[in-house]
Amino acid sequence: MELKKVIGQEAAKIDQLMREDIRALEADGYDPLLIEILDYALLSGGKRVRPLLVVLSARICGCDDDGVYRLATAFEYLHTATLIHDDVIDNAGERRGLASVFKKYGLEAAILTGDFLHAFSMERVSQCGGASALGIFCRATSGMVDGEYTQLRTAGNLDQSEEDYFSVIMGKTALLIGAACEIGTIYGGGDELGRKGLRTYGLNLGCAFQIVDDLLDYQGDPKRTGKAVGNDLAEGKVTLPLIYALQRADVTDRARLLSILSDEGQRQQQVAEVSSLIEKYHGFSDARLKAEEMGALAVRALPDVSDATIPPEQKVLVDLCTYVLNRDK
Amino acid sequence: MELKKVIGQEAAKIDQLMREDIRALEADGYDPLLIEILDYALLSGGKRVRPLLVVLSARICGCDDDGVYRLATAFEYLHTATLIHDDVIDNAGERRGLASVFKKYGLEAAILTGDFLHAFSMERVSQCGGASALGIFCRATSGMVDGEYTQLRTAGNLDQSEEDYFSVIMGKTALLIGAACEIGTIYGGGDELGRKGLRTYGLNLGCAFQIVDDLLDYQGDPKRTGKAVGNDLAEGKVTLPLIYALQRADVTDRARLLSILSDEGQRQQQVAEVSSLIEKYHGFSDARLKAEEMGALAVRALPDVSDATIPPEQKVLVDLCTYVLNRDK
Repeated sequence: MELKKVIGQEAAKIDQLMREDIRALEADGYDPLLIEILDYALLSGGKRVRPLLVVLSARICGCDDDGVYRLATAFEYLHTATLIHDDVIDNAGERRGLASVFKKYGLEAAILTGDFLHAFSMERVSQCGGASALGIFCRATSGMVDGEYTQLRTAGNLDQSEEDYFSVIMGKTALLIGAACEIGTIYGGGDELGRKGLRTYGLNLGCAFQIVDDLLDYQGDPKRTGKAVGNDLAEGKVTLPLIYALQRADVTDRARLLSILSDEGQRQQQVAEVSSLIEKYHGFSDARLKAEEMGALAVRALPDVSDATIPPEQKVLVDLCTYVLNRDK
Repeated sequence: MELKKVIGQEAAKIDQLMREDIRALEADGYDPLLIEILDYALLSGGKRVRPLLVVLSARICGCDDDGVYRLATAFEYLHTATLIHDDVIDNAGERRGLASVFKKYGLEAAILTGDFLHAFSMERVSQCGGASALGIFCRATSGMVDGEYTQLRTAGNLDQSEEDYFSVIMGKTALLIGAACEIGTIYGGGDELGRKGLRTYGLNLGCAFQIVDDLLDYQGDPKRTGKAVGNDLAEGKVTLPLIYALQRADVTDRARLLSILSDEGQRQQQVAEVSSLIEKYHGFSDARLKAEEMGALAVRALPDVSDATIPPEQKVLVDLCTYVLNRDK
């Protein structure tokens, strides 16, 4: 089946379960304002990639039980909690083309809804996946926070290394994706080797995803991405293409880059100049190569099966890598 | 042993374990800024009442295993997470006489540290207490959020009923205290009846505690409480003494109270007048009676044993009720 069709079909199942969960909370007497915000934050679209990875990882291990979807929702709950808190931290007014929870309902509601979803997601993982799955889930959460701390501590540092960058995107994106794959494998009854392989797949896929995201920030078509070009630059975020350029630039170009980067107004106005300097030092093309390399590592970590025996779910995981690398939004 | 001595002795054990946890996180390579904030937020004093209740509840069931202290720390982690997020929501600069995490380290660090402690506490409960303990812990967290939503939704509503007040303090204070007792009982191997009894003890103790807290806000000695008199009133929080007065006041007094309450400046300046109106309608004395009633309900919910066989830990639980009712800070 075509990848987009699989994604759409599985996302519909996850949405349906989340809708049922919210209705059950409503029936349990939870506050009407909380219910309204959960509806708003959880059911306004999204590809549900993390839950999909849980389901596919379990299926690869031979699991044909539909209970895995219930476990999978936990990843959308935690992911949404993270986004809601991130929007408070970044003072962000928009999310997926709609007003953010923070903007629409205020600071208190945003912090509380994130906390609620945190607890809700963890209870779900414990119920459906057991203690070892919960341990992985909680450690992914701690790692995400740790990554944000690294970002917070190194913000404004223009001498970031490739290693700093990877430690940030590992926390920001890859850990939760790796945990989705690993926990899916545990649920599906996979062995230690399978767990490790799927986790490695997820971590690499997550990093590739984030590198492409950071490339699109410079090179994307705003009509497709829905975001202005040069957002990260304007906010002073130093991503991989820029790290490469800063490392390789000659004295004059480096001084020029540093002078733009250290001034907020310049950062907003000189996107084109920064882009052309990154281009000059192959920052974009090498970042893309890095993403492709990590995509290849992801695929190589999948179970070793001959083409004749490859399960359809494994095919979807491979297609997902291609999709992540080639997406334009 | 005297209650204060027990509290001090047990708090020292909890502090020691928390110190070891933070050192272990440091050794695991967690970000130095996160480590610094955990030290600051967790190790700046506190009576550790919630962990103490876990330990005592387990001991009553005959548990003599020291692993219960590890489980107990989870309650201090979750409680601290809640306080840190509350201080962001309330824009509070101080906590226990020190600058709040929000004030000292900023919004991002405060939200992230709360999230970290959330995940950390839940992993701990799952590890040490198992899935059913985690279910109770997560539902207490959800209930706390739900209570804050009720407070958010009804804020500024001057026609609150006693029922509204109890639904708020149940979430704000009592649920976590009830969960501490219940989870301690589970750890100690208590039966269904014991669990229910200790949970009821905790819920009533928590409500009594909060009513006394709200009384101290009007009647406490700032030198003892460390807080200015009339804080809640200034913030527009309608607590039990005021609810009683509003329900019972004649037309003139009620109009006067409503006129003060609806004006922020008046609320700050007319504390003495509001107090004397509450006094006139027995708001303070009846709130105190209510707290004493709930303290008695707490004690009555404890296991039924003759005086000769009462375990020392049960004696401490009884003393704790007396202490909560008579505290002046």
